[in-house]
Amino acid sequence: MLQAFVDHLRHAYGSVERLNELWGLTYWSHSLSSWADLWSPDGNTNPGYDLAWRRFQSSLTTEFLAWQARIVREHRRSGQFITHCLVSGHGLPAADRHAIAQAVDITAENIYYQAQDALALPAASGGGDGAGAPSWLGDTGAWTLYLKADIGRCGTRPGFLVTETNALSIGDAHSNAPPYDGQWRLAAYALIARGARGISYWHWHTCHYGNEAYWQGILNHDLEPGRCYQEVSRVGSELAVHGDLLDGIEPDADVAVLYSQDSRYALAFQPPLARPGSAAADRTSYERIFNAFYRAFFDAGAQLAVVHPAQHFERFPVLVVPALHIAGDDLLRRLVAYAEAGGHLVLSFRCGYADEHARARWARAPGILREAVGASYQEYANLAVPLGLTATDGLALPAQARATAWADGLEVEGASALASYDHPHFGRFAAVTTHRFGLGRVTYLGTLPNRELGRAVAELVLGQAGVRPPWTDLPASVRVTGARATGGQRLWFVSNWSWDPVAVPVPADGAALLSGRGVRAGAALELGAWDVDIVTEP
Amino acid sequence: MLQAFVDHLRHAYGSVERLNELWGLTYWSHSLSSWADLWSPDGNTNPGYDLAWRRFQSSLTTEFLAWQARIVREHRRSGQFITHCLVSGHGLPAADRHAIAQAVDITAENIYYQAQDALALPAASGGGDGAGAPSWLGDTGAWTLYLKADIGRCGTRPGFLVTETNALSIGDAHSNAPPYDGQWRLAAYALIARGARGISYWHWHTCHYGNEAYWQGILNHDLEPGRCYQEVSRVGSELAVHGDLLDGIEPDADVAVLYSQDSRYALAFQPPLARPGSAAADRTSYERIFNAFYRAFFDAGAQLAVVHPAQHFERFPVLVVPALHIAGDDLLRRLVAYAEAGGHLVLSFRCGYADEHARARWARAPGILREAVGASYQEYANLAVPLGLTATDGLALPAQARATAWADGLEVEGASALASYDHPHFGRFAAVTTHRFGLGRVTYLGTLPNRELGRAVAELVLGQAGVRPPWTDLPASVRVTGARATGGQRLWFVSNWSWDPVAVPVPADGAALLSGRGVRAGAALELGAWDVDIVTEP
Amino acid sequence: MLQAFVDHLRHAYGSVERLNELWGLTYWSHSLSSWADLWSPDGNTNPGYDLAWRRFQSSLTTEFLAWQARIVREHRRSGQFITHCLVSGHGLPAADRHAIAQAVDITAENIYYQAQDALALPAASGGGDGAGAPSWLGDTGAWTLYLKADIGRCGTRPGFLVTETNALSIGDAHSNAPPYDGQWRLAAYALIARGARGISYWHWHTCHYGNEAYWQGILNHDLEPGRCYQEVSRVGSELAVHGDLLDGIEPDADVAVLYSQDSRYALAFQPPLARPGSAAADRTSYERIFNAFYRAFFDAGAQLAVVHPAQHFERFPVLVVPALHIAGDDLLRRLVAYAEAGGHLVLSFRCGYADEHARARWARAPGILREAVGASYQEYANLAVPLGLTATDGLALPAQARATAWADGLEVEGASALASYDHPHFGRFAAVTTHRFGLGRVTYLGTLPNRELGRAVAELVLGQAGVRPPWTDLPASVRVTGARATGGQRLWFVSNWSWDPVAVPVPADGAALLSGRGVRAGAALELGAWDVDIVTEP
Repeated sequence: MLQAFVDHLRHAYGSVERLNELWGLTYWSHSLSSWADLWSPDGNTNPGYDLAWRRFQSSLTTEFLAWQARIVREHRRSGQFITHCLVSGHGLPAADRHAIAQAVDITAENIYYQAQDALALPAASGGGDGAGAPSWLGDTGAWTLYLKADIGRCGTRPGFLVTETNALSIGDAHSNAPPYDGQWRLAAYALIARGARGISYWHWHTCHYGNEAYWQGILNHDLEPGRCYQEVSRVGSELAVHGDLLDGIEPDADVAVLYSQDSRYALAFQPPLARPGSAAADRTSYERIFNAFYRAFFDAGAQLAVVHPAQHFERFPVLVVPALHIAGDDLLRRLVAYAEAGGHLVLSFRCGYADEHARARWARAPGILREAVGASYQEYANLAVPLGLTATDGLALPAQARATAWADGLEVEGASALASYDHPHFGRFAAVTTHRFGLGRVTYLGTLPNRELGRAVAELVLGQAGVRPPWTDLPASVRVTGARATGGQRLWFVSNWSWDPVAVPVPADGAALLSGRGVRAGAALELGAWDVDIVTEP
Repeated sequence: MLQAFVDHLRHAYGSVERLNELWGLTYWSHSLSSWADLWSPDGNTNPGYDLAWRRFQSSLTTEFLAWQARIVREHRRSGQFITHCLVSGHGLPAADRHAIAQAVDITAENIYYQAQDALALPAASGGGDGAGAPSWLGDTGAWTLYLKADIGRCGTRPGFLVTETNALSIGDAHSNAPPYDGQWRLAAYALIARGARGISYWHWHTCHYGNEAYWQGILNHDLEPGRCYQEVSRVGSELAVHGDLLDGIEPDADVAVLYSQDSRYALAFQPPLARPGSAAADRTSYERIFNAFYRAFFDAGAQLAVVHPAQHFERFPVLVVPALHIAGDDLLRRLVAYAEAGGHLVLSFRCGYADEHARARWARAPGILREAVGASYQEYANLAVPLGLTATDGLALPAQARATAWADGLEVEGASALASYDHPHFGRFAAVTTHRFGLGRVTYLGTLPNRELGRAVAELVLGQAGVRPPWTDLPASVRVTGARATGGQRLWFVSNWSWDPVAVPVPADGAALLSGRGVRAGAALELGAWDVDIVTEP
Repeated sequence: MLQAFVDHLRHAYGSVERLNELWGLTYWSHSLSSWADLWSPDGNTNPGYDLAWRRFQSSLTTEFLAWQARIVREHRRSGQFITHCLVSGHGLPAADRHAIAQAVDITAENIYYQAQDALALPAASGGGDGAGAPSWLGDTGAWTLYLKADIGRCGTRPGFLVTETNALSIGDAHSNAPPYDGQWRLAAYALIARGARGISYWHWHTCHYGNEAYWQGILNHDLEPGRCYQEVSRVGSELAVHGDLLDGIEPDADVAVLYSQDSRYALAFQPPLARPGSAAADRTSYERIFNAFYRAFFDAGAQLAVVHPAQHFERFPVLVVPALHIAGDDLLRRLVAYAEAGGHLVLSFRCGYADEHARARWARAPGILREAVGASYQEYANLAVPLGLTATDGLALPAQARATAWADGLEVEGASALASYDHPHFGRFAAVTTHRFGLGRVTYLGTLPNRELGRAVAELVLGQAGVRPPWTDLPASVRVTGARATGGQRLWFVSNWSWDPVAVPVPADGAALLSGRGVRAGAALELGAWDVDIVTEP
């Protein structure tokens, strides 16, 4: 494997002298005299090496799957298709979701979630009540279902399959949290609303032996129908009636969030953030920043898409770019052009800091983005304790808004400061800036916003960009997303993530598919505890 | 060793096909084609394999000790006896206390405890002030002395030796907690009261070198008599006077707690509980459940015995069965018969769930026990946060009573619910049920009770079973246990686990051995701080 | 390496019989029959072995550096000198600072510190706001700058070089904490005041690649002058003016703290303390006790020196000896003689407990020191929870004073108890004693003082020893230390570790060098936020 990597490097870079230069190997006397000098990845400390190695691993995965797909394609019957599950969320360390999506017919995800109180909206402060959730799940909360689906919708077509999701309970023998009545159905329609073309449950019945003997199926060990069976059956019955309409829908999306696999690799190797309440490095810094920005716009009511640099993100009115630490000049110039042409570009700290070889750029940060941002910085600090903020221009800040984890030493150069830090030292720096640039606008966050700050900035951005949430005056527990059916009908998925029944004001006449009732503009759609309906406009 | 294990399996199961079936090896493609396919225990993920391996390891230990004992027996002189220390508490991973006890003349235990505030009764909330206790000690508290002795009393005869216990201090150089004045004596009489036939202290003087240079002896490094020497001498002087009467006593026991080595093995491999406040598996789940049930009855004033399936537990009016996850049909039927014949059977969650091959049973849980319990469940959940309870029938619940860690989805089928959960979802399930069955009764706890819930249920059970604590109206810091001397006299060990002196109402005329005073029914026995006396009835 | 160690042992001890005796190898059946029996250090459990091994490792380091220095000396030009950085603080595991100092021309240290709020005086309770500080830094706070310099000043001459210190930020990519304006200058003059002859910053500009790409230099990646450049330039400009006067100064020191490399080794192997709030051993017990005692006297306003047994500590009026666990009879007798001749000897628990082979002494503790201390103990305990204290004689105890982590069972034998424990058991023991002995005095602390207790005892000791802080009535944020210039002038370094400006009463006429103003006795020296000045007496 190391030899294959060396061959790859030789082909890509030509000479060890070039590698010495690009990776700065003179530092700590690591310069190579010949290709035979290259060390193995174990214990490597050089960020340029690490990034190349991770890309190489990832390309091997893609190549292997593409080779397998070619073989299968020679033998498949008509109507058969090739898929592959991409795990879910931010995925596996050595796999590039967008690249793999090009090699299969339809992508698939295993979308697991923490049920029970963790799904409540509005979430309990601190990120949702995910106590007891398996650590491999990462963040918890209703928003993670949307995030995982929006990440999964990454192929050339807007749909994907859910190859596994929660049946009775997930995880090891000590992680049992069966959903409350209604939660399975809520989860199913959230996934369908965001592009799932099929949902499979893991699995039919709980195994009686083996490592996963307590990863519980639709039936448990007694093989008798129980609560999960009844709930899943209800979804199945509804889909038997409405499946044709729901098949092939295209979810709405006004806000795109740019995913950078390279930046994820680089920030896992040299994480900019410490784990909350700790002095240890947070190797999930990229995921943490990405999720905070996704969630900020989710909380503001936006409908999101996750896009990759290879995709045409220019079509979205708002483009959010979290932690784009690794980027070549071309991609950065494309972001500048996007704003100049009228887009609203939202950037986080670390964007544009390093080049495609993981070298910190020699220019004042954020480098190529500096003029568009209208601000720059020469230093930055980690925030062990969150800082309060002073809003300076048009930003409605709730009292709980905080800057966390990081603060760029941001000095405005044409931009307007939206918020600054309440602090004798950091007070000189802007925390959030916005800059009219060309026909568009660039908003920059020099800090990791807590939920209140993130939502406030997102609401301001959506307002400035003219993006309106689909329905208004929603109860805090209700989420609405739209989609267009293949026949052109508009669909609204209206869900209530709470024990408390709600009445949701409906903006237009139509029909509530699941309850089978008509709805009228201005009247209320009634939803029970953990309930969902689909409103169609004729 | 692996070869010996394979030989054992071949002998026990006959064919790989049988193993494939019993262990469900088709899952994850682990099926064996020949005995040579069997993997080594490192990294094994199959629970059936693990249980067989642990039993095999344990049998090797027993065989080795039995072989050694046979050799020594050929050479011993008259009056010499063979013993072996079984560590204490739940013991070593690969040793079966009851099996080893059959191979020696008298069993022995090394009973260490956390001294100082951890010994106070009533214990500080949260399980006793065991801050700073070595982690190998496990639970702390006065009750652990009784637990360890009751576990130690497992041979064919009711006595055992204490081969090691606390002298000045135990553990590594950073774990010094010398007992307060009186605590050595309290501990000694607690052990004697529960069957100790001899007590040795580790050790005579602290070593001046070596790994245990700060595991402190009766004399410390200065070799001069100090506080520990004086306290131990006092016990010795008393035993010189009263030893004949105390030798060979049989401790009272009304409540038996069934110990399942197999369940301990299985729940260490696939633990049902998470560590408190964590999402990580608690590999001591069996010990935690067992101890919670032992302690519930201890707190209710019961006198306990720990019994093994091979023993005649039918003679006890109350039989407590914690976490009997692994059990063959015969043992479960024997439990049913015990209740039917008039016993009060107390079961915890996980009882009867898997068979003797660690396979989850195919029947609605608790399977063979279902009819006797009068309730069943199809699902269960971990409780990351304790739940409050509503008492529904005859159970006096203190306000602090909580269900912790686990909740079976228990539905009554003839039983009465004693308590249910205060929760919009879990509220539909019973937390504690009781069921008149045949001439007896079955009480079932679908949750891990906190101390207040455990004690309340235990008091109800004792009352229903007609088991009365030996003395009544005891101060909260006082513990009384009874025993019968070889000459037939009744002995009452009365101890005060507190800095505050107490006056204990005496139920009958007699004599206080240690203080040398007579006592009269209705009068008070005076005990000082951390003091103990033995009352004899003539 | 093991063979070299065996050769060393053979040479040092002569026979395995002698080693068996000195290390107590009969325990756990470790006796050696021949040199070939000796095990390797991995997994060794014997403290005598460990101490010998650590000393051997350390001597190899010294020998290697001395050999390198001899080679370089043969080739150096006139004016060139040999130095070697000794890391800083308590240094590396296998290096003896004092021994290495004899082999080079001038010692050097890499003195890093946590900037921002951690530098504030008075420190936030709990040891300074060091949240987010890299764990390799150890303790944080302004006092650690003085400690590290006082440790660094260990050669035969009073000066040392600072080969590395904080530029813009230190540590990994997630540990960014650039100093506030003024803090670089405060740190520079603190180091100069305590003997630094030169200060180099790490490093000129931040690297663009490599492992330390976010260990930030005077210039950051943009290579443009920024805040750090300006601040360091200011120090440079001042030194260009005043450097001649500051070069070669000798810092004042009234209180010596004895450093025992052997005790550090031994207490890392068998730590007497548990980590705060934990039952795990604190392998930095020596550093923790040493720092607590250094800081107690720092907080009391003393000027300190760190001395080694090979140095002439008898010249100091106060000698503080923390955790001298390992000491031969000669060193202990020298301490006794120091007090007898008029010195004030301050001892902590564990002093004099073991001999030079790590054997606990056979005498009542503190052994050879017992008569001079005027008190002894036979037992000791760890304190999982801090204890309050009652002052009994002349000690002014603030309400927050606490005994932490450890309590000797100290009984007075001629000494006066200064404080005892508020506790039903520990109340019988003295916590702090003082004893007039010969012409001097011995103060003994049987516990690890928290900051308030430490400072109160240190103030009492300084008063009794006639050591007066150089300036009086200082604001709580101000630190003053003195030095004598090579020309004989007295210099006072006056620094303000706070955002709040202060007026400092000046005791004598003179000149403020950095602000260029004259000062008069009784008038005030004005200092801004994080400001410093140097007052000269003519």
